[in-house]
Amino acid sequence: MSRLVEVTELALRDAHQSLLATRMATEDMVGACEDIDKAGYWSVECWGGATYDSCIRFLNEDPWERLRTFRRLMPNSRLQMLLRGQNLLGYRHYEDTVVDRFVDKSAENGMDVFRVFDALNDVRNLKRAMDAVRRTGKIAEGTICYTTSPLHTVEKFVEMAQRLKDMGADTICIKDMAALLRPRPAYDIVKGIKEKCGKETLVHVHVHSTTGVTLVSLQKAIEAGADIVDTSISSLSLGPGHNPTESLVEMLADTGYTTRLDKDRLLKIKDHFAKVRPRYAAFESKILGVETEIFDSQIPGGMISNMESQLRQQGAGDRLKEVLAEVPRVREAAGYPPLVTPSSQIVGTQAVFNVLMGEYKALTGEFADLMLGYYGETIAARAPAIIEAAVKHAKKDPITCRPADLLKPEWEALRDAAIGLKGCNGSDEDVLTYAMFPQVAPKFFSTRDQGPKNVGKVPSTEPAAPAKGDAPARAGNGKGPIT
Amino acid sequence: MSRLVEVTELALRDAHQSLLATRMATEDMVGACEDIDKAGYWSVECWGGATYDSCIRFLNEDPWERLRTFRRLMPNSRLQMLLRGQNLLGYRHYEDTVVDRFVDKSAENGMDVFRVFDALNDVRNLKRAMDAVRRTGKIAEGTICYTTSPLHTVEKFVEMAQRLKDMGADTICIKDMAALLRPRPAYDIVKGIKEKCGKETLVHVHVHSTTGVTLVSLQKAIEAGADIVDTSISSLSLGPGHNPTESLVEMLADTGYTTRLDKDRLLKIKDHFAKVRPRYAAFESKILGVETEIFDSQIPGGMISNMESQLRQQGAGDRLKEVLAEVPRVREAAGYPPLVTPSSQIVGTQAVFNVLMGEYKALTGEFADLMLGYYGETIAARAPAIIEAAVKHAKKDPITCRPADLLKPEWEALRDAAIGLKGCNGSDEDVLTYAMFPQVAPKFFSTRDQGPKNVGKVPSTEPAAPAKGDAPARAGNGKGPIT
Ligand SMILES: [Co+2]
Ligand SMILES: [Co+2]
Repeated sequence: MSRLVEVTELALRDAHQSLLATRMATEDMVGACEDIDKAGYWSVECWGGATYDSCIRFLNEDPWERLRTFRRLMPNSRLQMLLRGQNLLGYRHYEDTVVDRFVDKSAENGMDVFRVFDALNDVRNLKRAMDAVRRTGKIAEGTICYTTSPLHTVEKFVEMAQRLKDMGADTICIKDMAALLRPRPAYDIVKGIKEKCGKETLVHVHVHSTTGVTLVSLQKAIEAGADIVDTSISSLSLGPGHNPTESLVEMLADTGYTTRLDKDRLLKIKDHFAKVRPRYAAFESKILGVETEIFDSQIPGGMISNMESQLRQQGAGDRLKEVLAEVPRVREAAGYPPLVTPSSQIVGTQAVFNVLMGEYKALTGEFADLMLGYYGETIAARAPAIIEAAVKHAKKDPITCRPADLLKPEWEALRDAAIGLKGCNGSDEDVLTYAMFPQVAPKFFSTRDQGPKNVGKVPSTEPAAPAKGDAPARAGNGKGPIT
Repeated sequence: MSRLVEVTELALRDAHQSLLATRMATEDMVGACEDIDKAGYWSVECWGGATYDSCIRFLNEDPWERLRTFRRLMPNSRLQMLLRGQNLLGYRHYEDTVVDRFVDKSAENGMDVFRVFDALNDVRNLKRAMDAVRRTGKIAEGTICYTTSPLHTVEKFVEMAQRLKDMGADTICIKDMAALLRPRPAYDIVKGIKEKCGKETLVHVHVHSTTGVTLVSLQKAIEAGADIVDTSISSLSLGPGHNPTESLVEMLADTGYTTRLDKDRLLKIKDHFAKVRPRYAAFESKILGVETEIFDSQIPGGMISNMESQLRQQGAGDRLKEVLAEVPRVREAAGYPPLVTPSSQIVGTQAVFNVLMGEYKALTGEFADLMLGYYGETIAARAPAIIEAAVKHAKKDPITCRPADLLKPEWEALRDAAIGLKGCNGSDEDVLTYAMFPQVAPKFFSTRDQGPKNVGKVPSTEPAAPAKGDAPARAGNGKGPIT
């Protein structure tokens, strides 16, 4: 008897976010939906902050319409999304009733599984969203952002899992956005969770493939009892993306573990995206090989590109090495946050400031907020001298409460602002779009009736060998890569 | 205490053979040699049939000079080569004294480890070469070509290992040229060898990465006791190549296994080939993603391209599906040979003939030879009716002896022919070059004094993003891909 391992397919969200700068149009996905729906996945990840952003910023698509399309085309599948806790899909904390409203609307439009995470692993920032999900009867997945530091031990991750379970998480996700999860800790953490939280606790493992080792980590996680793992169809896999779904299936052959995936369906899904991908050649990630330096540097590739471009803008393109050496010091001072959007940008930009202007001579507003607790708690204490500097800079006091506790009700104001915009249809969905992307929503509302604008192109040369010349920066939306 | 896992670096041979059509010039490798020499590898694979062929066919380089260069630049390293048993580096069986001479000269010029294999796994075809290696005091690695069929059981592979050990093999290699070795059989075969042949038997595992699962297979092979594994530096890895060396190192962190590789050296080697690779963009393999279909089709990608181009030449480009269905039948009729050069070409071409002209209505000469035993024994009996057809076609009888037993002494004749060629320097090395590549050697000898001709180009666009437009067929030398 084999033990069943369930699989989440990432092709419709994280895969093209990681490989094609989130640019894939809905019309290029619909052709694969029937096969995805019938292939035997546990869930289909298909929605999140970057895809929502890209829909309204680049594709003139209504993200809610995309969701309803998936719902219609995959009636048998659990649809899954990535939710930044109290930040929802935006970049600030929202007041609790906005969180409730967003979750309600997402569930109503067809979402089944909500993977809820916080960039600092502060579980207080997950609670409201998780409660809202549970109230809808959908699946609330409590998420641990995996990172490494002297403080991040197996025990700490397991404790966090227990806290998430106590909060009512239906499943626990270990989310390794930077491909740092090596086989040994993958085994130990899953084992630890199963022992501490109970064998029946469903453990879901999300890894990227950047460092080349994480398919082995999935194997070890499965040996330790992981129930669900995330992969992407091979034609949208590897590099900064994910391990190929088909390889996972083959890896498990005759091992005592099995998936329930239909290989013929997988082949069709693969062929579909193999045809689609070349149209997005201009958006291909430039890092397609394996990068293992992150194990020592601790700095995700996407963050390095951001810092490089900041340095170049300041005419200091030659100082990257100093900045790379500064990042771990800034991270330590900030209490060892995981480096994931938005903490990766906040830490990276401050490291650039420190190198160009002297250590903490100038602070960014976001870094001051991070030091003062306005993003939440960190695993380690933050450096007192720099907290003091932050107090002076920001002219406000440190907090220890849940950041959203300081927020006043805001739905009415958001609603009023949204419905005043040309093209806003007055729905709660539109208000939420405005709430999360106030800079982008007005233009989108005004152009929405022109319909989707597919930015993919039929390659003018051979389909299999696209030129990669003038790829727009992946940092096009400024926040893409690290999730 | 961790157990030491040793590593063979493939960058200088199999990696650029698999990824860049074997075109890399010696001058593009020398810059990495010091770091490779000091990184802590067990051996450095740097020579074989395709690199030898490419040297004289495309690069106007003397392969023996390349070998001496490696010897000089890597004084602390074991240099390793791939040797096709009685075929040496050519495509026919050579008489025994030619085999002796080749091994002597290779050892004399600096070779340390001889990985000796036979396309049919007929150990009689390995014996003379292995004996010759042992006489020189160098390392004789007896090799099992891994393949799958109803006959290829773990027990059979373990028995073959025992036969190789009885023949005096210093190490046993499991060679998985098509990335078919899944984690479970990787574990079982290594375990089986250690149990049957003794724990002290050194087991060396060679896998490609085409199917995306084989780093996990290496992990399992190591858990079962494998002593040495093959990888390639990350900037020359993945796709039809190999698993990245750096990923192997990171995979083993804290697992009870360790390599003795120096990560700083690895980073330098990586950077070197990251700079070199774009110059060979025109030769890049078109298959760079993961391909798992081979698990079911049993047909390596390189073989499919060959058959496609044969069909197209016959105006029957639309009949590939029939040919793909025919291949397993032909392979069964031929006694389930592994599909590796040259058996892959022989089986593939016959499958094309069968589809175009009717089953076995026409036989190729090579297929008739295969059916009649002139390549050696196969694991299963060959189909009697087709043996009969082969007798008629080839007008000769089946044999059961070792094919080379039928050969007459040939060194003097080869020597006379070689020294008659313009530019031949009269050395045994030149005679061997002529012996193995009689069609190519004459031109090479005549142009040798013009010196090496690097076919790499400094990319005219961005270095990181080469256009891949007009890649010459990988089958340029007709025999490249499947080793
Ligand atoms: Co991700
Ligand atoms: Co190989």
